[in-house]
Amino acid sequence: MSLLVVGSVAYDGIETPYGKVERVLGGSATYVALAASFFCPVRMVAVVGEDFDPADAGLLGSHNIDLSGLERAPGKTFYWAGVYSGDLNDRTTLTTDLNVFAGFNPKLPEAFRSTPYLFLGNIQPALQAQVRRQMTGVRLAGGDTMNYWIRENRDELTETLRDWNVLLINDSEARMLSGETHLRRAAEKILALGPQSLIIKRGEYGAVLFRRDGHFIAPGFLLETVFDPTGAGDSFAGGFMGALAGSAADPNDHAVLRRAVIYGSVLGSFCCEQFGVGRLAGLTRAEIDSRYREFRAFTEF
Amino acid sequence: MSLLVVGSVAYDGIETPYGKVERVLGGSATYVALAASFFCPVRMVAVVGEDFDPADAGLLGSHNIDLSGLERAPGKTFYWAGVYSGDLNDRTTLTTDLNVFAGFNPKLPEAFRSTPYLFLGNIQPALQAQVRRQMTGVRLAGGDTMNYWIRENRDELTETLRDWNVLLINDSEARMLSGETHLRRAAEKILALGPQSLIIKRGEYGAVLFRRDGHFIAPGFLLETVFDPTGAGDSFAGGFMGALAGSAADPNDHAVLRRAVIYGSVLGSFCCEQFGVGRLAGLTRAEIDSRYREFRAFTEF
Repeated sequence: MSLLVVGSVAYDGIETPYGKVERVLGGSATYVALAASFFCPVRMVAVVGEDFDPADAGLLGSHNIDLSGLERAPGKTFYWAGVYSGDLNDRTTLTTDLNVFAGFNPKLPEAFRSTPYLFLGNIQPALQAQVRRQMTGVRLAGGDTMNYWIRENRDELTETLRDWNVLLINDSEARMLSGETHLRRAAEKILALGPQSLIIKRGEYGAVLFRRDGHFIAPGFLLETVFDPTGAGDSFAGGFMGALAGSAADPNDHAVLRRAVIYGSVLGSFCCEQFGVGRLAGLTRAEIDSRYREFRAFTEF
Repeated sequence: MSLLVVGSVAYDGIETPYGKVERVLGGSATYVALAASFFCPVRMVAVVGEDFDPADAGLLGSHNIDLSGLERAPGKTFYWAGVYSGDLNDRTTLTTDLNVFAGFNPKLPEAFRSTPYLFLGNIQPALQAQVRRQMTGVRLAGGDTMNYWIRENRDELTETLRDWNVLLINDSEARMLSGETHLRRAAEKILALGPQSLIIKRGEYGAVLFRRDGHFIAPGFLLETVFDPTGAGDSFAGGFMGALAGSAADPNDHAVLRRAVIYGSVLGSFCCEQFGVGRLAGLTRAEIDSRYREFRAFTEF
C-alpha cells in the first residue's frame, strides 16, 4: 500500500570530521520518502523554491516517489547548515533559512486523501492536524515533532497527537514532552496522550518501541564509520513506515511493529554511511535485507 | 564448577538523588562474588582491615562464598565515597582511602590454585599476572582494568592481557586502551592484544560482546528507577562469569558466551535497584531467571 509523507525538502550544508558539502538535497520528507521507497509507493507533500534542481526531482521520481504534491513557490528552498563535533554526538546549527518553507501550508492533491499510510514530518502541530483531518480511511498515521513545538505549542501538539497511531521522537524530546527523566516512565506518560505506539530513537544506541502491552529494544547497528548522521532519524522513520505500508500485515500488531523497527534501524544505519542522501540514493533492497539478517544475527541468544 | 574472584573489598559512602548511605559493604570482589554466587560456588581472595564487620563476612559466607582467601590486615578496610549527578550518569569521588588495600598482595590458598574459572578484578596488572601464573588448569580467565592502569602501566597491562580469555571493560576504557573512537575498530585492536572475547560495557545502554567471528549486542534493561548504579559493572562481570562457571557448556562457544552476557546484564540491572549490595543480598535465582526471560521477550523479533 502507499505511504503519504508530509514534511520539509531542503538543501543542507554539512560539515563532519570526514569532509564538507555546501549544498546537498535534504529535509525530513526527503529522507523519509527515500527510505520508505524501498518498500512501497510513496507520495510526497512538500514545498520547494525556484532554485530546486530538476536533478533532485529526478532522483526522487526515480525512487517510486510521486511528486504531484510537491509545490513550487516563488523564492528559495529551505536551507540549513550545520557542523558536527569530532565524535559526531553534537551538532551546531550555523544557518537556518526557512525561505519558502516558512509559509508552508500543505496542499493535498485529491488523489492523495485516501492514502492508507500517513507520515507527518516535523512541522507545526496545527498543520499536521489539518492534513490528518483531510485524510479518509487512514490505516496507520505516524508522525514526528521537535523540542521547539513541545515548548512553544504544547497544547496544540497534544491535541494533534491524539489521532496518531505512532509517535516517533528522540530521547531528549521524550523527556521534554513527558517531564520524566527515566525512559519507561516518560513512555507511560506519552502513551497516555493517545498514540498506541511510541518509538523513542536513541541515536547510536538504537530505538525502543513502547506499547501498553510491553516494549521492544532494538540496539543500534555498529557502523565502522559514521560519515554523516544527518537524516538518520528521518531515514529510520521512513524505513519503519515503509516496512509497515509495504506488508499486508496488521500495522497494529506488536510483532509486525517490531520487524518494522528493525527495518527503520537498518535504513537509519545506511543513511550515516555517506553525506546527505548519498547512500540511500544508491541503496538496494538486497542490501537492506542482508543488514536486517545481520541485526538478527547479532541480537539472537 | 568454582569461580575464583580476586579484587577489592571496601566500605562505600554513596549519595544518589534517592538518598545517602555512610558506610556500606562494597568493592569489586564483593559485587562480582555475590553476583556469581547465584550460579556457582565462589572463592574470594581480597584484603580487609580490623574494622571489617563480621556481619558482612556472614553475608558473603551465606552466599556460597569461600572466604579462606580473605586476608585480615592491621589497619582499616579500603574506603571510597562518592556522589552521583541528578541523572546518575556522572559521579564525583569524594574520598579514596586505600588503607590496607594499598599493600594488597593476593595470597592464594593452596586449594584455590586449581579453580577452573578465574576473575581478576581491577588491581595492578602485575598482581593480576602473578595470580594468573599461580593457577593451574584454568578453563577460563577473565578480568577487568581501569583508566589508571591503562595510562600508567600500559606495557604491563598488555603483557598481562595476553593470557586472558575475556576482558571486560567499559566504553571509555576501550577507547583509551585502543586509541580508537569507534567501538568496532576499538574492539578489533583490543582483540589483537590477545583475549578471545572482549565485553564492552555501555552503562544503561547494555553491553557488546566482541569476538573475531562476530559480535553480540545486549541492550540495557530499562529500569523504572536507577536507585544506585554503584557496582553494576562488577555485578555484570559476576553474573557473566558465574553463568559460565555454573554451566557445563564450553565457555569459548559464542552462543554460550551470549547467554552469559544476558545473565551479566540481568545481575547488573538488579544491582541498581537498591543501595550497595542491598538488592543482590536478597535476590533469588527465580528472580534472575524471570528477568532473563524478560530480556528475551523485549529483544525478540
